[in-house]
Amino acid sequence: MTAEIICVGTELLLGDILNSNSQFLAIELAALGIGHYYQTVVGDNPERIKQVLQIARLRSSILLLTGGLGPTPDDLTHETLADFFGVGMVEKPEVIADITQKYAARGRKMAASNRKQASIPAGSDILPNPTGTAPGIIWQPRPDLFILTFPGVPSEMHRMWRETAVPYLKSQGWGKQIVHSRMLRFWGIAESTLADKVASFFDIANPTVAPYASKGQVRLRISAKAESIAAAEELIAPVEEQIKNVAGSDYFGADEDTLAGVVGELLQEAGQTLAVAESCTGGGLGQMLTGIPGSSSYFLGGAIAYHNSVKESILKVDPQDLAEFGAVSDKVAQQMAKGAIEAFGSTWGLSITGIAGPGGGTDDKPVGLVYIGLAGPGGEVESFEYRFGALKSRDLIRHFSACTALDRLRRKLLRFT
Amino acid sequence: MTAEIICVGTELLLGDILNSNSQFLAIELAALGIGHYYQTVVGDNPERIKQVLQIARLRSSILLLTGGLGPTPDDLTHETLADFFGVGMVEKPEVIADITQKYAARGRKMAASNRKQASIPAGSDILPNPTGTAPGIIWQPRPDLFILTFPGVPSEMHRMWRETAVPYLKSQGWGKQIVHSRMLRFWGIAESTLADKVASFFDIANPTVAPYASKGQVRLRISAKAESIAAAEELIAPVEEQIKNVAGSDYFGADEDTLAGVVGELLQEAGQTLAVAESCTGGGLGQMLTGIPGSSSYFLGGAIAYHNSVKESILKVDPQDLAEFGAVSDKVAQQMAKGAIEAFGSTWGLSITGIAGPGGGTDDKPVGLVYIGLAGPGGEVESFEYRFGALKSRDLIRHFSACTALDRLRRKLLRFT
Repeated sequence: MTAEIICVGTELLLGDILNSNSQFLAIELAALGIGHYYQTVVGDNPERIKQVLQIARLRSSILLLTGGLGPTPDDLTHETLADFFGVGMVEKPEVIADITQKYAARGRKMAASNRKQASIPAGSDILPNPTGTAPGIIWQPRPDLFILTFPGVPSEMHRMWRETAVPYLKSQGWGKQIVHSRMLRFWGIAESTLADKVASFFDIANPTVAPYASKGQVRLRISAKAESIAAAEELIAPVEEQIKNVAGSDYFGADEDTLAGVVGELLQEAGQTLAVAESCTGGGLGQMLTGIPGSSSYFLGGAIAYHNSVKESILKVDPQDLAEFGAVSDKVAQQMAKGAIEAFGSTWGLSITGIAGPGGGTDDKPVGLVYIGLAGPGGEVESFEYRFGALKSRDLIRHFSACTALDRLRRKLLRFT
Repeated sequence: MTAEIICVGTELLLGDILNSNSQFLAIELAALGIGHYYQTVVGDNPERIKQVLQIARLRSSILLLTGGLGPTPDDLTHETLADFFGVGMVEKPEVIADITQKYAARGRKMAASNRKQASIPAGSDILPNPTGTAPGIIWQPRPDLFILTFPGVPSEMHRMWRETAVPYLKSQGWGKQIVHSRMLRFWGIAESTLADKVASFFDIANPTVAPYASKGQVRLRISAKAESIAAAEELIAPVEEQIKNVAGSDYFGADEDTLAGVVGELLQEAGQTLAVAESCTGGGLGQMLTGIPGSSSYFLGGAIAYHNSVKESILKVDPQDLAEFGAVSDKVAQQMAKGAIEAFGSTWGLSITGIAGPGGGTDDKPVGLVYIGLAGPGGEVESFEYRFGALKSRDLIRHFSACTALDRLRRKLLRFT
């Protein structure tokens, strides 16, 4: 009894989008302990979709289809499924009502083309889409075959999967032996260095430990197979504890934790507040901090000091120091951090100034050179120099800068609490 | 004569990695004008790989396989291909020499496990790997069937594709007719509404027109088949012109254009500058603007006015208005935009204040309610109310807010120029 992932969409064949839906469903199926051996991508073409269904139907019991549920004429997944299994399409008034209401909530009228999204194969049930207009279906067209469909929009698909599809699959008896994972997150250490430190854990069998890395963040996934989540957690806990001991302060959180969230918790515990002063990140640090719901209780705001005039006017950076040391310097980073505290009345001031590229670098100050300033209570101020590498992209240098600034504050706050 | 992409790797079935190789090859095939209708992912399992080969062989003439060429025992792509077509494996001394030399250059000795990488199916040719140890193969095991294999490591695969595979495919007569596309981008119109407006274009054959949408941005892709890029562009141009006429100002750019980039160009043309005042987006608008290299010539900076005290101190929002109308109101949005101009000395001030959720909504002011303020030269100021929907995620509401603010300024600037 295995599942199969079928992604429908000519845009995937043209390479317009990356197929993240396959990865999402693959991870989710693994977590449920449901095996899957094949993934297929096919265009918005009824004949070819039917050929794929014919093959998949013979080798798998659960078909998960994404894409082709939109309002346009090339969205044909439901029509093709109905045709393949020899049933008609049925219009569901509750879907019309749902789409109408969603448009009305945004002050708009439902377009005529949306009407087709309300028709699903006869005998199938609606898999509700809380956020978009395209519902999916749950259908058992044959005794040994279960079909679930989802829109191609990842955010809609994820929610539908978690809220409706998973409970349904479990109610059918799948997902009994579960795989439960915990993801440990690290910042400020290279993947290879961490891997060497925890090498002994890579050989154990249950739980398994596997390293991942992307955009500067290193992760270790501890996965246990067990009868229940509680039993899996018992297997995971001692390994997690040992890894944390080895990693020390490079470990910053687990699972859904983010640097911004962890910093927020530490600030809240300490009853302290933060303001930022951003040059090369242009707001990216503030955006990360305010991505956390409830961040208004410790994050006051900040200055996007992109032009030097803003560094002077709002942050009171000394024009002479700007001229002498340049905007990208320890001195200016420190003054920006202090200026943030003064302008916004926060406990902490965190600043970033650097050269994100691709232009603007010199031999002396190459692209990727970034200074982070950190000012705290009682007038103390520090700064840190980073060289993220001139060959990195502008986006990545800005991302590293914002994350590293958060990590600097995190390490500082850890010493306070 | 079509191609098919087959990605081999259990790590793809576990969701450990995102399948970027499929997207890369899809884009490359499209550019060569080689059609492909299916992509398959299968694990490192010889029986299942053979089943996939059996299916693909009957429907495609070029099979592109990635993955399974490594030195470990689970890397079995070449062995399985040889077995499927009933030939033996042949060890290639030149590959042994190449791997030995690559290790020597790094001061190492070739590991015993690498030896297996030097064996390829009898009758196939080596597809050289300039950067890694795993060569691919080019093989015509049947008169009507061409097989190319690549390692799963994207950087190695890309280089092998460009340096050896493409010239080979062209020498076989493929890639004579190219497909060239142009992506038109729209903001402020629903996919279904735009689709209704341009419905007549969906039926034409060359170029084709197809709609896409994600995160509020709607796109139309115009793809032409022709002998050359210039000839394709001639087919695309009149359709593009007509679509732009139909869409009016909802069209904002093409191909790599972004809202932030288009706004930047308009500001530069006008010799004007911009400052922002962000509440619920917390820096996201500034981040988008400064994502454009060279944005310092028109973007001065901004205030992240997350706490009301910052709205008052830096942006001079009237405390009484804050108390009477609330931070999320037309009045405050307008004052924030004006305040940005005054604090930063810019031509334009653009502000965002809203409720990004998930908490903080009321019946009166639900999650998703956002006000955008736009102040311009000569003291003029406007504001716009949006209801992005209480069920949308915090991230999406913030993304919509920042993009919509940019779009508002874009439309305003268009009337100026």
